[in-house]
Amino acid sequence: MKLTILGCYSATPKINTNPTAQVLEIKNHTFLIDCGEGTQVELRRNMIKFSRVKHIFISHLHGDHCFGLAGLISTFNLLTREADLHIYAPKGLKEVITMQMKLSNSWTNYQLIFHELTSTSSELIYEDDKVEVHTIPLDHRIYTNGFLFKEKLGERKLDMNAILNADIDMAYYRKLKQGGDVPDNQGNMIDNSILTKDPKPSKSYAFCSDTAYSASIIPIIKEVDVLYHESTFIEKNEALAKPTKHSTAKQAAKIAKKANVGKLILGHYSTRYDGLNEFKAEAEVIFPNVELSRDGKKFEF
Amino acid sequence: MKLTILGCYSATPKINTNPTAQVLEIKNHTFLIDCGEGTQVELRRNMIKFSRVKHIFISHLHGDHCFGLAGLISTFNLLTREADLHIYAPKGLKEVITMQMKLSNSWTNYQLIFHELTSTSSELIYEDDKVEVHTIPLDHRIYTNGFLFKEKLGERKLDMNAILNADIDMAYYRKLKQGGDVPDNQGNMIDNSILTKDPKPSKSYAFCSDTAYSASIIPIIKEVDVLYHESTFIEKNEALAKPTKHSTAKQAAKIAKKANVGKLILGHYSTRYDGLNEFKAEAEVIFPNVELSRDGKKFEF
Repeated sequence: MKLTILGCYSATPKINTNPTAQVLEIKNHTFLIDCGEGTQVELRRNMIKFSRVKHIFISHLHGDHCFGLAGLISTFNLLTREADLHIYAPKGLKEVITMQMKLSNSWTNYQLIFHELTSTSSELIYEDDKVEVHTIPLDHRIYTNGFLFKEKLGERKLDMNAILNADIDMAYYRKLKQGGDVPDNQGNMIDNSILTKDPKPSKSYAFCSDTAYSASIIPIIKEVDVLYHESTFIEKNEALAKPTKHSTAKQAAKIAKKANVGKLILGHYSTRYDGLNEFKAEAEVIFPNVELSRDGKKFEF
Repeated sequence: MKLTILGCYSATPKINTNPTAQVLEIKNHTFLIDCGEGTQVELRRNMIKFSRVKHIFISHLHGDHCFGLAGLISTFNLLTREADLHIYAPKGLKEVITMQMKLSNSWTNYQLIFHELTSTSSELIYEDDKVEVHTIPLDHRIYTNGFLFKEKLGERKLDMNAILNADIDMAYYRKLKQGGDVPDNQGNMIDNSILTKDPKPSKSYAFCSDTAYSASIIPIIKEVDVLYHESTFIEKNEALAKPTKHSTAKQAAKIAKKANVGKLILGHYSTRYDGLNEFKAEAEVIFPNVELSRDGKKFEF
């Protein structure tokens, strides 16, 4: 998996701070997560091919997470895109985008397929043979979801020494990879675990922005490899975090610790702060493996 | 008057090309003209105070001219603006913006006042004691207006030598400034032109983007000091200009010549071109006083 941060600041832009947008490259997919104003330019700047983006996940309908979508859809159209575009977003966005297209008389040449989200419990919203995407209901001022991206466990690996020793017919290899028990040449059933090894562990990434501290997400994101959790504020500004339903870096770290994740990435910083070191320092006290997102930064895991 | 080009490129962005937005500073106003995606950041980059923007003029509802508006309105709100904001735009934009505000549960603290444009002939849309703004109906794929900004002629200037010679009572000075004839001490009416001088000539600026070549705008923009006229293409790509209802640099220059304007500024360049010199060279053959707009460039006149 490769995560590219296109923007990691909250609303009220400064020069050279971009609102939320990320690209997750996972199992040959290029998933766009949130699409704040300017995302189309940031995709270009980070050399991510527009044609590779086929699925866009929008957490909520605050402008700093979705006001770049109409422009991106229009640009795809001008570039004569033909491939379907799937958009997973709270109910309502379809109506706005449709009205914008109508007023500009710019219907897309390609299929624009909205998957409208309304559930307040976690649901599976995308699945193929390699990847699953689940929502993570968050606690924000308006209806908001994070997203959990999970590689599916691959096939079991054949232990060729064991297979040759047990004298298993090649016709059974496919069943073995899928985890089934198979007979040897004498007709004795052999347990799968004797003949195969565990597949490579599957990776997972959880995106949680924007949200107040919410213990209810912990079971959903339990033991993910990487958690991006918003930290709009640092602890000294907790009084601002509470009414706006945002988190502090310390709260993000608490969630990371309780969910026993592999790594925590912080982001969605308020532009009021001059630097980001305090975010990291504050979180590390609670949870050691913390990294700061920055616009244009790439994470591989 | 001072014109700041925030963006002068057409849709399909490259890195570091901004869609259309301009700021015209005229008689203590800061008028924003069009508001493509990213305009709020470009306002910051060009150090134009958000609080000074009280009137926004939107030419048409293609995204590269208005997709920055929702973000700007939201940011004004986050910055606790209180002053009214007037938006002059084609009918329809109010509905979109209202829906976006509703979905993000972000009603503005300040009054958002839409002036919905539907007329296909030129109309006066703003007036105070110093400035007038008229629409310039353009010929584009959807309903589009340019805007003509005119300083009003100031008061006539008193010719103090002539006034003292003619022995005019001070009580008549105000009437003289307003152009009236007044009596001398013997009661003889004296012609205003003997006692006053012409005021400073008033300046005017016409913004025309996006449009096909349209001779019908010539009477409206006749003898303006500065004309911004779109030139999406150069002449060799005229075949692209026609169906998209855009202009070439040569066509922009023809309009400038026929309208006998003071200066022509070109812009709304397609991002297909590597440089802009050909635009200028092509226009100069027809009309000599041509300048190229560039993102961040300022013109004073």
